Amino acid sequence: MTGGFRQEDPFFMISRRRHAFQFFEKSFVAQASGGAAASGASPRIEAPDSVPQWGMFEMKITGLPAETRGVEATFLVKGADISEWAEGFRDGDQWRVRFMPRYRGKYHYVIELDGGEMLHDTFEVTDPEPGMHGPVRVANQYHFAHADGTPFYPVGTTCYAWLNQPEPIRRQTIETLSKGYFNKIRFCVFPKHYVFNEKEPDLYPFLPKDGGEREYDWDYTRPNPAYFARIDEAVETLGKLGIECDLILFHPYDKWGFSNMPPEANDFYLTYMAARYGAYANVWWSFANEYDILKDKTVDDWEHYAWLIQEKDPYDHLRSIHNCVPFYDHTKPWITHCSIQRQDFYVCAELTDQYRAKYGKPVVLDEIQYEGDIPYMWGNIAGPELVRRFWEATVRGGYATHGETYVGYDDVLWWSHGGKLRGDSAPRLKFLKDILYQTPGRGLRHTTQEWDDDVACAEDDPDYLLFYFGRNQPKYRDFNSLDPEASYHVEVIDTWNMTVDDRGVLKGRFHLDLPGKEFTAIRVVKVK
Amino acid sequence: MTGGFRQEDPFFMISRRRHAFQFFEKSFVAQASGGAAASGASPRIEAPDSVPQWGMFEMKITGLPAETRGVEATFLVKGADISEWAEGFRDGDQWRVRFMPRYRGKYHYVIELDGGEMLHDTFEVTDPEPGMHGPVRVANQYHFAHADGTPFYPVGTTCYAWLNQPEPIRRQTIETLSKGYFNKIRFCVFPKHYVFNEKEPDLYPFLPKDGGEREYDWDYTRPNPAYFARIDEAVETLGKLGIECDLILFHPYDKWGFSNMPPEANDFYLTYMAARYGAYANVWWSFANEYDILKDKTVDDWEHYAWLIQEKDPYDHLRSIHNCVPFYDHTKPWITHCSIQRQDFYVCAELTDQYRAKYGKPVVLDEIQYEGDIPYMWGNIAGPELVRRFWEATVRGGYATHGETYVGYDDVLWWSHGGKLRGDSAPRLKFLKDILYQTPGRGLRHTTQEWDDDVACAEDDPDYLLFYFGRNQPKYRDFNSLDPEASYHVEVIDTWNMTVDDRGVLKGRFHLDLPGKEFTAIRVVKVK
Repeated sequence: MTGGFRQEDPFFMISRRRHAFQFFEKSFVAQASGGAAASGASPRIEAPDSVPQWGMFEMKITGLPAETRGVEATFLVKGADISEWAEGFRDGDQWRVRFMPRYRGKYHYVIELDGGEMLHDTFEVTDPEPGMHGPVRVANQYHFAHADGTPFYPVGTTCYAWLNQPEPIRRQTIETLSKGYFNKIRFCVFPKHYVFNEKEPDLYPFLPKDGGEREYDWDYTRPNPAYFARIDEAVETLGKLGIECDLILFHPYDKWGFSNMPPEANDFYLTYMAARYGAYANVWWSFANEYDILKDKTVDDWEHYAWLIQEKDPYDHLRSIHNCVPFYDHTKPWITHCSIQRQDFYVCAELTDQYRAKYGKPVVLDEIQYEGDIPYMWGNIAGPELVRRFWEATVRGGYATHGETYVGYDDVLWWSHGGKLRGDSAPRLKFLKDILYQTPGRGLRHTTQEWDDDVACAEDDPDYLLFYFGRNQPKYRDFNSLDPEASYHVEVIDTWNMTVDDRGVLKGRFHLDLPGKEFTAIRVVKVK
Repeated sequence: MTGGFRQEDPFFMISRRRHAFQFFEKSFVAQASGGAAASGASPRIEAPDSVPQWGMFEMKITGLPAETRGVEATFLVKGADISEWAEGFRDGDQWRVRFMPRYRGKYHYVIELDGGEMLHDTFEVTDPEPGMHGPVRVANQYHFAHADGTPFYPVGTTCYAWLNQPEPIRRQTIETLSKGYFNKIRFCVFPKHYVFNEKEPDLYPFLPKDGGEREYDWDYTRPNPAYFARIDEAVETLGKLGIECDLILFHPYDKWGFSNMPPEANDFYLTYMAARYGAYANVWWSFANEYDILKDKTVDDWEHYAWLIQEKDPYDHLRSIHNCVPFYDHTKPWITHCSIQRQDFYVCAELTDQYRAKYGKPVVLDEIQYEGDIPYMWGNIAGPELVRRFWEATVRGGYATHGETYVGYDDVLWWSHGGKLRGDSAPRLKFLKDILYQTPGRGLRHTTQEWDDDVACAEDDPDYLLFYFGRNQPKYRDFNSLDPEASYHVEVIDTWNMTVDDRGVLKGRFHLDLPGKEFTAIRVVKVK
């Protein structure tokens, strides 16, 4: 494979899958035969006997001829009319095939090699381990849930280039993330060159071209095994922490050439990413950070990348594309949710319900200015203001993403490098996440309720109301539009000091004294 | 005049003025005669011998027949080709004619009575007293200056119904205003009926109809002398404090009928207001508070009122009209400046430069949510947020207006009743006012300067820059676009703690450490 790009012909793959089926039918499905050892001489599969549902099942295949064009496995769930497939990828000297089983029970698989030879075996898919719920999908149009139906309320953060930092900082990052502030993280596959990001990474994603003379002259057919092993480890570790990885496939902050590789290199890279990371339950595809700054890429290019990832990712992971200024057309069918950077300097979270109405999809505000104090206005708001924006997005039926950019800590800024958090917002965002996980589960939406339409207020069903007053600080409120015959459990929430003041069960229409402070919320739940 | 409306015929008035001229020419201008005593038997003028320029010169005329339709005085500045006029108004048993002289020197005046009789006299216009600069005009398209050219930077407040409160509260209001926080106040001529405003006023603007049986059955031809005497005193007292009175002519919060008087009563009232208050230098005409809530009044009505005030106010005081939701068409020629209530819940001050561009006039944000803690969202933001909005309006080349609505002080809320201030913003607004009065004087405008266009920044000339970071909190900034050869006096301003940190004179391009706190401004002035 070295020295040339693999031709990706969908019909070739379809024909392969048909062969594999015929093999299943002939050799062991029809005969109900058990797992057979890999036949043939030198090629050998190393794979576990079992994997939990939604876990990552990996086969390492050694002994394949160097000229092997590709490896694909076809899977059949025993006793069910379900077949699945996975493409392998070359990782240094060996091939790997990764697969995420969606069903419990016994799986058969077969790998057809170029010479027509078949490797095949079986494995058992066991119950998922605690906390494993499968990939996140869109649920109830504007929200998210895992494949097993468990709601997922994203409260994300951003560490664009954390994997390109020295090991002690990477370890700190994981320590920080293990505190449970966030359940989603955005980071780049490629290293980053930008303000506060001017050091060379210790590893590069591709190996240098054999005999290449220029600096940064890459062999785009040879991904660097060590580079991607680090990403593997990160995705796996984060998965165990319950954190979704919003993998940024392309970004413009580049001095090495990864933002404008040749078309066949981009295709190879995306195919490789799908094969390598698609089998992790906690992966989302973010096609770009600031797609519009990648001036060499056209809308046709992005549409092609999206088509390719859809072709190559059999798990249909979430897909989005993040803007600098103009939004990508989020109505495109391949986009599962809006990944938004604020367009206006002052309002963004405040427009969440408008974005929902316009695009009919979940809204994730992935960049709404970071908590910090750098000179750039995209990264110097205070903790209370960032938390306010999260709440504003929440009560308007959307989600937001954290980032932190404080200077003065040895040039380690969370937003890009990870490390330690220096600000005030993270514990408050965890508090908000807890509140979200206490909602009934259908997802919030903005509504006008009580008083005039000024009040930011959300409900997901008529019996659950969450009011948020942001920078308004009422000293009291009279509730006059609830069912006068019903009873409501009322709590006053200080979203900054993270307290919930239980006001007990109140009948229908009531007067509520409030703290007269900014950042107050009220939770009103009908007692049934 | 009782029992019928005066017919206002502009041609009638023009013909009167022509008569007065002929009288001047014949009787004393041609003969250069000095002040003559009022001729005739019973009618008598009482007037001072002198008045400062921009002061209010008042003649009291007694002894006129009860059926007198109107009184007009014509004035001639001795030795200059300048004539002016003033309409009088009946005030109980007497008539008053008020006049504000724009020139220094000797004035002649003559009053032609219905029977053709002429009352005439002279008076001396002396130098203005300290602080008297004449009425405020639009200056440099988007800004204001007094008639003598002194810039006026409005930092206003709102006490809608303060004159309808008991005397001790009115006295407190004046005490509070005398502290110099504000140089403009909005208040209503008519009493107000609304939330927190449900007590009957002690006085009404009109006397009850003779023989009227209904409650609130007014004789709209008979203004209540005591009611208007209180307004006179207020306007005069505020004038001495350097405070402009934005007199609200109509408003919807009414239970007495003043918001929907018959057309002829409205005309009489406006004519009366022009005659009674036009001669005060510190009066602005606000045609309405929330014109769009006055459902009985059409655009034609408002245009008619505007025409009438222009006819009747020879001093051409500033004119505006304030909205609840839709703006009035501020491009109308009679509107001197935009008086704006926020339309969006989140942004208003942030749109100041857009309003300027759209209307080509000064922008005064007269209602942008009040500091306070009432349950209504229009009156419960915190002090820092209100001050932020003022600064945001400032650096975008406009002006804003304060109001305060804290509950818990015996139902006295500054926004309507006056009294004492309970919040935090007023001293900070005075601080801002001081900063404004230290600008070079051409008025600020928004500009993009340094870094990207995110930064809120204003300049009125290339050598004066005022940056404001609002809720952004940069720890430092590098200035790279100033003249590298020039020197600049640099000050870092904490707009909340009201400190100015002098960083001395810096050369051209410089690095500036900043507090990394919200609400920081930087003043950069080229050293010449």
